[in-house]
Amino acid sequence: MAVRTPDPHPDWEPGDEPVVQPPANPGWLTDLELAEVRGRLPLLYVEAIPVRVDGVGQVTEVGVLLRANAVGEMSRTLVSGRVMYGETIRDALFRHLEKDLGPMAFPLLPASPVPAAVAEYFPLPGISPFTDDRQHAVSLAYVVPVTGTCEPRQDALEVTWMTPAEAASDALSAEMEGGRGVLLRRALAAVGALT
Amino acid sequence: MAVRTPDPHPDWEPGDEPVVQPPANPGWLTDLELAEVRGRLPLLYVEAIPVRVDGVGQVTEVGVLLRANAVGEMSRTLVSGRVMYGETIRDALFRHLEKDLGPMAFPLLPASPVPAAVAEYFPLPGISPFTDDRQHAVSLAYVVPVTGTCEPRQDALEVTWMTPAEAASDALSAEMEGGRGVLLRRALAAVGALT
Amino acid sequence: MAVRTPDPHPDWEPGDEPVVQPPANPGWLTDLELAEVRGRLPLLYVEAIPVRVDGVGQVTEVGVLLRANAVGEMSRTLVSGRVMYGETIRDALFRHLEKDLGPMAFPLLPASPVPAAVAEYFPLPGISPFTDDRQHAVSLAYVVPVTGTCEPRQDALEVTWMTPAEAASDALSAEMEGGRGVLLRRALAAVGALT
Amino acid sequence: MAVRTPDPHPDWEPGDEPVVQPPANPGWLTDLELAEVRGRLPLLYVEAIPVRVDGVGQVTEVGVLLRANAVGEMSRTLVSGRVMYGETIRDALFRHLEKDLGPMAFPLLPASPVPAAVAEYFPLPGISPFTDDRQHAVSLAYVVPVTGTCEPRQDALEVTWMTPAEAASDALSAEMEGGRGVLLRRALAAVGALT
Repeated sequence: MAVRTPDPHPDWEPGDEPVVQPPANPGWLTDLELAEVRGRLPLLYVEAIPVRVDGVGQVTEVGVLLRANAVGEMSRTLVSGRVMYGETIRDALFRHLEKDLGPMAFPLLPASPVPAAVAEYFPLPGISPFTDDRQHAVSLAYVVPVTGTCEPRQDALEVTWMTPAEAASDALSAEMEGGRGVLLRRALAAVGALT
Repeated sequence: MAVRTPDPHPDWEPGDEPVVQPPANPGWLTDLELAEVRGRLPLLYVEAIPVRVDGVGQVTEVGVLLRANAVGEMSRTLVSGRVMYGETIRDALFRHLEKDLGPMAFPLLPASPVPAAVAEYFPLPGISPFTDDRQHAVSLAYVVPVTGTCEPRQDALEVTWMTPAEAASDALSAEMEGGRGVLLRRALAAVGALT
Repeated sequence: MAVRTPDPHPDWEPGDEPVVQPPANPGWLTDLELAEVRGRLPLLYVEAIPVRVDGVGQVTEVGVLLRANAVGEMSRTLVSGRVMYGETIRDALFRHLEKDLGPMAFPLLPASPVPAAVAEYFPLPGISPFTDDRQHAVSLAYVVPVTGTCEPRQDALEVTWMTPAEAASDALSAEMEGGRGVLLRRALAAVGALT
Repeated sequence: MAVRTPDPHPDWEPGDEPVVQPPANPGWLTDLELAEVRGRLPLLYVEAIPVRVDGVGQVTEVGVLLRANAVGEMSRTLVSGRVMYGETIRDALFRHLEKDLGPMAFPLLPASPVPAAVAEYFPLPGISPFTDDRQHAVSLAYVVPVTGTCEPRQDALEVTWMTPAEAASDALSAEMEGGRGVLLRRALAAVGALT
């Protein structure tokens, strides 16, 4: 099965310019260059678990993306994407939240830059619980309350809202790509929402 | 100098009823009972550092309370108070934020119950950086973004908003009661706002 | 079923003197006094999940206590106990580790005082995942690598070592008292050992 | 002043082979390739603050490296280095600790993969407190107790042991390259050693 981390290339749009902007935008990589670099360096990703919280900050619902890949297979995933050259982690997180949840999600980014969980994706299984057959990627994962309306854009078909218990279930884990069910559980645990 | 943690007694109001409500509210302690228990057990407190954040969650301002004690001495402190019998940490945090910042502060409580910092207050100095001459108290401290208007109630005279750098300065630390300048720095560090 | 947090009374021994020692040790509570205070205040506890780690710090085994209660029922639990008046969290953690694992466990206490997880135990179920029919207790839980030999003392019959996956299993959770299976999962998640 | 993050090239040694080993080691980059990639992608680093702890895990001393750069300027820095393709964060951390502190330091890597602090280094100042004129690097920083003898290798001239208060002082911060004084303070705060 082809597990996949959302490709940084398609999500590049005019509004996504990173903070530091050297001439001719060297942070933009052609498909060929990206393929080349993927076999040479670990790539830095951010991932977000969108949640809804009640009046005292407790997680009541968890948003999981449903996505179809290039060959039409459906899988569940998290908000996820690459950190570009010159871009801060916060800006990358905000950009990918907007890309995957639409402009009206109104995410409340965490004050802390320290992630709720860290996932290391390797092309080969067995090194960690996480795999990505395209690359070695290290992902910083954050739990992000959203207060608005989520309307998935691009290739995300749907955001499914579920209880923390459903999100942490074996059934859902089995549907998630690249081992992200484990990441989801760890992140829910970090916010006291794993039972 | 008389350092003081806000006394749980005065802040007890009808709207503050804890979640578990046994007959005749045994969680309410008379001044005498409280004095008695304070020499026997560590008391559990919550503290909050109210902050304002920008669109990507970064702390831009920190709120510090200015308070006068019984003999008219002014000192700086944090939102702080005791966890009552039967009350959750979240409910205690919300109650004390409302008590100290007013009902229109609209605090966004953290999704995570794990505190940004832990402070151990002892009657005698030297055991930790924190002292409270009335009691041994253990405080779980959280950084809490507020989105509304803060109007201090009770004995807090004012909320002073300052930059994270000012909040972490030696000058401010010297004004804070019970060693809370250290707690403030640790909590700011936890959210990447200590420079 | 009578869930129980280890009683602070039996574990009081001469060597356990807290750091601050006021005259006649007011931190020592008679059974009657303890019963009285338990209905009035949340009690502060520490809990420890003893683990064995490999050369790069990764958790390989988790230690769970097997204990018989007063009526001979067996249950699984964690290293757990009350923080005494005048005692630091670290000293309490060390004291209870020694009490439950013996003097040759050589625990490596975490540098950070911020717990891996926080559990709130209430007498009534439904407020949190954690219950303790004797009291309202708030517990700070830490993951503690041990490097020596564990020989349970007192009423702990045995330390069972298991893989992180076994420790996080539904089967084990069902055997753990007071909802500590949830606490164990959250703490394992915090150290990247939940799969 | 030329601030510098230790160059991944010189620390590459036969024993450092990453876990995943594709043909001809594509994770090894020539100087030219590294220069090329540095302007296109954020590079992933790990940093370690070596500490000595007492019997209850409290930080008593902090190790800071003294180093001379290519033009003979002295500066203070932390244990630091790049994560290679196919290498886990833990393995990278262990490799760089051994590189900078020698083989007898016996570091106790944290059980948790979640860093104590995250630093984002940009070529241009002002985006974050951290700068690196060669590249955009994101660094995951860990506090690592060491139990053995530290003998700096390579270009690190010396490990200076100091109290946490000295390590967090303005004087030391001013000597540290790339803004690492801020990172040091944040990491010390995370382990309750910032006063």
